[in-house]
Amino acid sequence: MKLMVGKSADSTAVYLIEDTKALNLTAAMPEAGTDLIGLITTPALMEKLRNGDVSGTTEDAASIEPALPVTAPGKILCLGLNYIEHIKEGGYDIPDYPAIFMRTRNSIMAAGEPMVRPRCSDKLDYEAELMIVIGKGGRYITEEDALDHVFGYTVFNDGSLRDYQRKTHQWTPGKNFDNTGAIGPYVVTPEDLPAGAAGLKIESRVGDEVLQSSNTGNMIWSVAQTIAIMSEFTTLEPGDLIAMGTPPGVGHAKKPNPRWLKPGETVEIEIERIGICASPVMDEADIATQKVTS
Amino acid sequence: MKLMVGKSADSTAVYLIEDTKALNLTAAMPEAGTDLIGLITTPALMEKLRNGDVSGTTEDAASIEPALPVTAPGKILCLGLNYIEHIKEGGYDIPDYPAIFMRTRNSIMAAGEPMVRPRCSDKLDYEAELMIVIGKGGRYITEEDALDHVFGYTVFNDGSLRDYQRKTHQWTPGKNFDNTGAIGPYVVTPEDLPAGAAGLKIESRVGDEVLQSSNTGNMIWSVAQTIAIMSEFTTLEPGDLIAMGTPPGVGHAKKPNPRWLKPGETVEIEIERIGICASPVMDEADIATQKVTS
Repeated sequence: MKLMVGKSADSTAVYLIEDTKALNLTAAMPEAGTDLIGLITTPALMEKLRNGDVSGTTEDAASIEPALPVTAPGKILCLGLNYIEHIKEGGYDIPDYPAIFMRTRNSIMAAGEPMVRPRCSDKLDYEAELMIVIGKGGRYITEEDALDHVFGYTVFNDGSLRDYQRKTHQWTPGKNFDNTGAIGPYVVTPEDLPAGAAGLKIESRVGDEVLQSSNTGNMIWSVAQTIAIMSEFTTLEPGDLIAMGTPPGVGHAKKPNPRWLKPGETVEIEIERIGICASPVMDEADIATQKVTS
Repeated sequence: MKLMVGKSADSTAVYLIEDTKALNLTAAMPEAGTDLIGLITTPALMEKLRNGDVSGTTEDAASIEPALPVTAPGKILCLGLNYIEHIKEGGYDIPDYPAIFMRTRNSIMAAGEPMVRPRCSDKLDYEAELMIVIGKGGRYITEEDALDHVFGYTVFNDGSLRDYQRKTHQWTPGKNFDNTGAIGPYVVTPEDLPAGAAGLKIESRVGDEVLQSSNTGNMIWSVAQTIAIMSEFTTLEPGDLIAMGTPPGVGHAKKPNPRWLKPGETVEIEIERIGICASPVMDEADIATQKVTS
């Protein structure tokens, strides 16, 4: 099942996507609310959907402007180094526990919204990533049970300002510039994908230029292992987001010169069977400032 | 002005503390709500308070059970290394930019609530810290304007599981165990303290054993500098919390042996003129599990 939150005719709704058509679930069953948290926390609604018990008018999917799948995630946890070749290109040792950092709500935006190059740095980099949307919460989730806690999978661009990321050993500043991490547009439920969303092609591109090309099967820590590791220290809650780390090919490691994103480019992250997350890169000075500075 | 959020007779309210008396502001002006976010986002209410235009019945302050000052902070940003002697005891170099990490909402609790030693580690450590409660939000806040963005100051115990903190170079897991970071109980507004809450004695203790004893004047990055640095990458929002780092004397660096917190002990963090944040240490197995596992 492919779900999407989006704006059409000035209202935000949850949509079920089938080929080129989008069924407005918020209109068909108002309990669904206006982002995915309603479906995530109400299994009965998902059951109705799975049984085909929901009908309504459909819209052209392409006409809907994506919005964030979860408007107010309780936390956004990210794996830093989860593909061996990416670890080597960054100059890090292969670890025996994942590097974990967090992103703020301010740092993320929906697919299609501008990816903002801030006025204080031109070292803006892309990172293609699989992202987990947590369904059922829990603590001390075992690896065996972990996949039962996944609501769905989406696409993430873990946009980073590399000079700020490495100002100290803690990556937080470079990973948390406002409006640098794009999510979406689709959330695909697990039954439509291989277990743990493994074995899917993952790419980042600008136009015809392929920047990263790998496969989610190359991750060191699987989705199930990651949920088990993270829930050892924190209670995972419905709607929490977990970014699974990026494959090799990031801009700062390109030879002979780094390949930074520039205003006017559109960076696309694609994961097979999940979708394409496209972000137009804009200079902060050139965009409407209300979201960034409010 | 000393404010507190707390529970009395089964209801949670905002209180104005004067000596041993607590004035229930939620009863006196319901717009205040049941945590500080109402006062933070409504300057007119603070103006009424400052003008003494609020009256009502008072309760014995000691009878009120502390609750979190801000129930759902948008983000919790923390400085890692902000006192030179603490940097040396941890084996780090003196940096020219602060180490910044984040804590989840799950990892914090109110003063007085159990500080939980998890079942997977006995390396539970205390960290006495000054904490800023952000008032007016903003991006690119200058150091000169920064103190205008402070709503108040409180006490924080940045409880850490040291083995998990150092599993990799990213400190997130060890800083984010559920119910390890105590906040409160009081939030003191800036006019009652020195500028930037500098020059205040800061201590941590278990009973008569003084574990840390320093002064907020020893911080490398001041409150104003920290707000300027953080708002360069992220929009600060009303109710955001910023932890200012800890002085020397943490348990893992004690010689000849580390001094880990043990169940049955109560750790107290005190900052002069702000208050004492006391946390009874409990083993996870021994406490009611509903908050930790829900």
